[in-house]
Amino acid sequence: MIIIMKPKASDEEIGKVKAVIEGKGLETNLSRGATYYIIGVVGDTSIIDPKKLQVLKGVDRVMKVQEPFKKANRLFQPEDTVINVQGSIVGGGKLGIMAGPCSVESEEQIVEVAKRIKAAGANFLRGGAFKPRTSPYSFQGLELEGLKLLKIAKQETGLPIVTELMSTDYIDTFVDEVDVIQIGARNMQNFDLLKQIGKTNKPILLKRGLSATIEEWLMSAEYIMAGGNSNVILCERGIRTFETITRNTLDLQAIPVIKKLSHLPIIIDPSHAGGEAYLVEPMAKAAIMAGADGLMIEVHNDPENALSDGQQSLTPDQFDGLMTKVKAVAKIEDKEI
Amino acid sequence: MIIIMKPKASDEEIGKVKAVIEGKGLETNLSRGATYYIIGVVGDTSIIDPKKLQVLKGVDRVMKVQEPFKKANRLFQPEDTVINVQGSIVGGGKLGIMAGPCSVESEEQIVEVAKRIKAAGANFLRGGAFKPRTSPYSFQGLELEGLKLLKIAKQETGLPIVTELMSTDYIDTFVDEVDVIQIGARNMQNFDLLKQIGKTNKPILLKRGLSATIEEWLMSAEYIMAGGNSNVILCERGIRTFETITRNTLDLQAIPVIKKLSHLPIIIDPSHAGGEAYLVEPMAKAAIMAGADGLMIEVHNDPENALSDGQQSLTPDQFDGLMTKVKAVAKIEDKEI
Amino acid sequence: MIIIMKPKASDEEIGKVKAVIEGKGLETNLSRGATYYIIGVVGDTSIIDPKKLQVLKGVDRVMKVQEPFKKANRLFQPEDTVINVQGSIVGGGKLGIMAGPCSVESEEQIVEVAKRIKAAGANFLRGGAFKPRTSPYSFQGLELEGLKLLKIAKQETGLPIVTELMSTDYIDTFVDEVDVIQIGARNMQNFDLLKQIGKTNKPILLKRGLSATIEEWLMSAEYIMAGGNSNVILCERGIRTFETITRNTLDLQAIPVIKKLSHLPIIIDPSHAGGEAYLVEPMAKAAIMAGADGLMIEVHNDPENALSDGQQSLTPDQFDGLMTKVKAVAKIEDKEI
Amino acid sequence: MIIIMKPKASDEEIGKVKAVIEGKGLETNLSRGATYYIIGVVGDTSIIDPKKLQVLKGVDRVMKVQEPFKKANRLFQPEDTVINVQGSIVGGGKLGIMAGPCSVESEEQIVEVAKRIKAAGANFLRGGAFKPRTSPYSFQGLELEGLKLLKIAKQETGLPIVTELMSTDYIDTFVDEVDVIQIGARNMQNFDLLKQIGKTNKPILLKRGLSATIEEWLMSAEYIMAGGNSNVILCERGIRTFETITRNTLDLQAIPVIKKLSHLPIIIDPSHAGGEAYLVEPMAKAAIMAGADGLMIEVHNDPENALSDGQQSLTPDQFDGLMTKVKAVAKIEDKEI
Repeated sequence: MIIIMKPKASDEEIGKVKAVIEGKGLETNLSRGATYYIIGVVGDTSIIDPKKLQVLKGVDRVMKVQEPFKKANRLFQPEDTVINVQGSIVGGGKLGIMAGPCSVESEEQIVEVAKRIKAAGANFLRGGAFKPRTSPYSFQGLELEGLKLLKIAKQETGLPIVTELMSTDYIDTFVDEVDVIQIGARNMQNFDLLKQIGKTNKPILLKRGLSATIEEWLMSAEYIMAGGNSNVILCERGIRTFETITRNTLDLQAIPVIKKLSHLPIIIDPSHAGGEAYLVEPMAKAAIMAGADGLMIEVHNDPENALSDGQQSLTPDQFDGLMTKVKAVAKIEDKEI
Repeated sequence: MIIIMKPKASDEEIGKVKAVIEGKGLETNLSRGATYYIIGVVGDTSIIDPKKLQVLKGVDRVMKVQEPFKKANRLFQPEDTVINVQGSIVGGGKLGIMAGPCSVESEEQIVEVAKRIKAAGANFLRGGAFKPRTSPYSFQGLELEGLKLLKIAKQETGLPIVTELMSTDYIDTFVDEVDVIQIGARNMQNFDLLKQIGKTNKPILLKRGLSATIEEWLMSAEYIMAGGNSNVILCERGIRTFETITRNTLDLQAIPVIKKLSHLPIIIDPSHAGGEAYLVEPMAKAAIMAGADGLMIEVHNDPENALSDGQQSLTPDQFDGLMTKVKAVAKIEDKEI
Repeated sequence: MIIIMKPKASDEEIGKVKAVIEGKGLETNLSRGATYYIIGVVGDTSIIDPKKLQVLKGVDRVMKVQEPFKKANRLFQPEDTVINVQGSIVGGGKLGIMAGPCSVESEEQIVEVAKRIKAAGANFLRGGAFKPRTSPYSFQGLELEGLKLLKIAKQETGLPIVTELMSTDYIDTFVDEVDVIQIGARNMQNFDLLKQIGKTNKPILLKRGLSATIEEWLMSAEYIMAGGNSNVILCERGIRTFETITRNTLDLQAIPVIKKLSHLPIIIDPSHAGGEAYLVEPMAKAAIMAGADGLMIEVHNDPENALSDGQQSLTPDQFDGLMTKVKAVAKIEDKEI
Repeated sequence: MIIIMKPKASDEEIGKVKAVIEGKGLETNLSRGATYYIIGVVGDTSIIDPKKLQVLKGVDRVMKVQEPFKKANRLFQPEDTVINVQGSIVGGGKLGIMAGPCSVESEEQIVEVAKRIKAAGANFLRGGAFKPRTSPYSFQGLELEGLKLLKIAKQETGLPIVTELMSTDYIDTFVDEVDVIQIGARNMQNFDLLKQIGKTNKPILLKRGLSATIEEWLMSAEYIMAGGNSNVILCERGIRTFETITRNTLDLQAIPVIKKLSHLPIIIDPSHAGGEAYLVEPMAKAAIMAGADGLMIEVHNDPENALSDGQQSLTPDQFDGLMTKVKAVAKIEDKEI
């Protein structure tokens, strides 16, 4: 951590900043530049809140040197985290392919889709039971009934279940019934929810918020890990920008950036990013090529009659075609499902 | 609602779209343009989900004509909503001035600040008991103890209390202890929380999400109102943009836009928007001039030692100075506290 | 300037960085943190390109301490720059009010508008002769004929002329015919144009680019000033964000930020920012309240038949009303036109 | 084009809108919805400026149905445009690989780099002679001397030259000396420059502006094509978003979107997008997988001593490695250089 003092900072002001830092048991290192006086902090700076230095008189700016995340940081755990869910693996050269409908709608639908995506090569079944919808007047999901149907589809196919948790009220049920708990983009900074799932030992799929920086996203992973649960899979699903011709802008650079900063696996959801089915295949292939550890793809047996997000869903036949290509791409990268 | 068909849409595809719409009891109106075939929908289009039309074969785009919010829409309630909290009023020419520290820290602190801001002219006391923090290692607030201290400050000053609710676990406590429940920017689309506070009759202060459009913000208000609670105050606190020299970009155009689209009152929080104390006064004055129904301002008796957000807090003396100017500005606009 | 070395940087790598810096005649200051080794640079760091240090082996990051602009920097010129154009003054407590149509269309139109805005209190006439249009098929302005008509309007009213220069081809003509040369948002980083106007002594109105940071904007001012022309007026006209309900997001925080960083005057253009007439008055008043040194307002005698941007133009009567309010607001701020 | 009238629009106002449209020789089609009255326009709507309808009394909004670009529109030219520059081909299954240094620095440097990239498989030589730099104090390029050195490198290798034109002053020289004229991101809406290069018959590489929408980008291509020059290659190089951990956010979804909307070829520049060398390989491979028609890659013989952008340049050896992988990826997509 480095503190830049204002050009006219007094010796007294400089002394006070030094005293605060040294009061925490850290060392300081002073240097006077042409116009600015600079104080370096030596030691474990994570114990000082930079905002509390920022506010001292005479301080111009405080610059962080070290990332604020610890448990998610590759600096302190160089080897990749690998998540193994009943034999379906994400990370370490293995791709997690999570497919299924936006919303669970009926037993027939979810079982049929589950069989088709398994046959095509997916190793996780995704499906929404509790749905976050912008409008209170839109279909909100089958809720607990949806969880039951997902479980039936799991019995039929053996695929572990990924589904979204929106409220702390249902944590116990999710721990019992679900294999991977998804935290959606809109809840990425629902800190209360993060803290509570951090106390479970369930694998967590943590989606990036629409306008979350990569650092904030890793800090949300840190919330879960600080609670004791280090089974976190990151999922990029598009960020909000000025461009409106696609629903969101898919940030594939996030893959190599995350790989550099963190040991956590990262998968890509091209269905939500673009919001249209024709964008899914090129972006899914590109994601694998850029180093992703997996994909989350919306597949619906009858997109024209889907209760939500039909326009971005693939049919099972389209998903078959996609998986053939994804496998070819994975081979070049020495990866497999 | 208007459906644009693809240039090569077949008669059968056009027929299917018509059938779906008419099956809902609505009328259609067809016109063939130079390259596109267009279907207009006549009637209460809120009963059709545009995404479900989007996915039909042959459809190029679906354009909304009417806003998706109803209860929050000025079209259906032309007169301003006015919120009266034990005599402190927001809207209808009266300004709600909510001031106080980012975090409640001690009885001495909150009582002293409450007295000072009341003397300066504020009519609500704000203070954080539960704090949303990006890092799990930062101070998370005094929690229930903080609520107790706020109540003591209310007893001493009579100022109604505004404080943030982060989790459905504490709704009953907040309904009992708090006068205005604040929903923070990060929880603007925590739909579960919105639904539950919609069932109370408490005034709600709904902050705009960091990357929420004005329409999404009004849809979140709609969630609360759809539950039966129409006591919603909107609060703009800066949006996330590419500019990083200020913490966020304060969108003051939101004031006249909200006034046009909705009857709900809107206040401005310049402290969080800019993140630095020197930006508060010019933006507070500008907000009133642009038509805001009030302000939310961070005031701390000792910003240098604040447990959070000290760099954006005013001292009580600075707040006195600000209020003198705010009152002068309000006069030109024929408004009063 | 501060160089953060990678955690595993070798002594040789550290030595090389030191050697490069000291080779420029600057001093270095070393400190070893818990995980990072840090090199501070002491002296006039403007002679080192941080990107050239960034690329050296072992370097993790280079952090700037000092702003890269010099001539535009308030640090080196504490007193406000005041621009006096034939008696019409911008800065130092005087407001420059620039009004007129988006496009000059006819002698009758521009003369009538000029008379009306002068009567209302404007002290500059703005009008577009060369128009930057997104589509090649839109009206591109009357070009040189437009300049002639502006000059006639100046003869009739005495108001100095502000108009946009889009190409170096016309610099000599503009120097002869125009009083303030406007550089539009799309040309804010047309460095060739900036360099050439930097060699003139004309006052320049430099609009902020749609996605320019405040620092980049000041660097574009620096281009002009580095050429010897220090008569620069900055103009904020809205930035591009995710919000599309208004054309752009007006960044009024830019006013106090510019006042802190620079001595140059700053005016606000609410007409282009919002793109709709009803947003002009609240934002114009808010801008003055936030400390702006003036306004640029579109006024058209017949907005319904304007050749461009009619939907954001005020009528002369509306402008009269606006000016009455602007004068009242200016009074509170101890400013006058 | 569709005009939505305000809920309270009078018959007279509706009549006036109809009259304006019909006065242009177009037909109208009326329908009254639940709250809004809607006017559809039938015929070639490109002859009406929507902004001129927007401003008529009683009009709420004007919605476009058809894209505003014609010559760049795939609707009117279904087959791909293929650009052949002396045997180096971009589009139609052939990849254009443009490589070379950010700045041309010396004959030795540019000739060495050109030989190395040709050996690795590049088919165009890129190198900057005129450099757009944010700071007036940074190296601005060798200018005309740089063009001479590029020509020498071309003589040695046969590779056609791509270099940036920043000013209309040098158009004749560029037409004589250069094979592909690059228009940089900052000049994407320098309409004067676009018009003048539209009158040449040179292939143009048109970079997307930092905050340009895909539609605006295609409109800038339309400027060039409207002048008679249809040899346009589009180049995505990252857009500006809130995320600052990478220099810009690379929008790879732009590839399938452009392929749908336009027949023009599109290449990707991962070097400028990310701003760091480690991001180049994953993004280059991803771009090809997503359907790009080529790449622009910065290669420098000695990045540590580059005069600009060294931190994002590959060494010739790294470029060799990249090309091996790019060729393997291209094969899966049935493409070749």
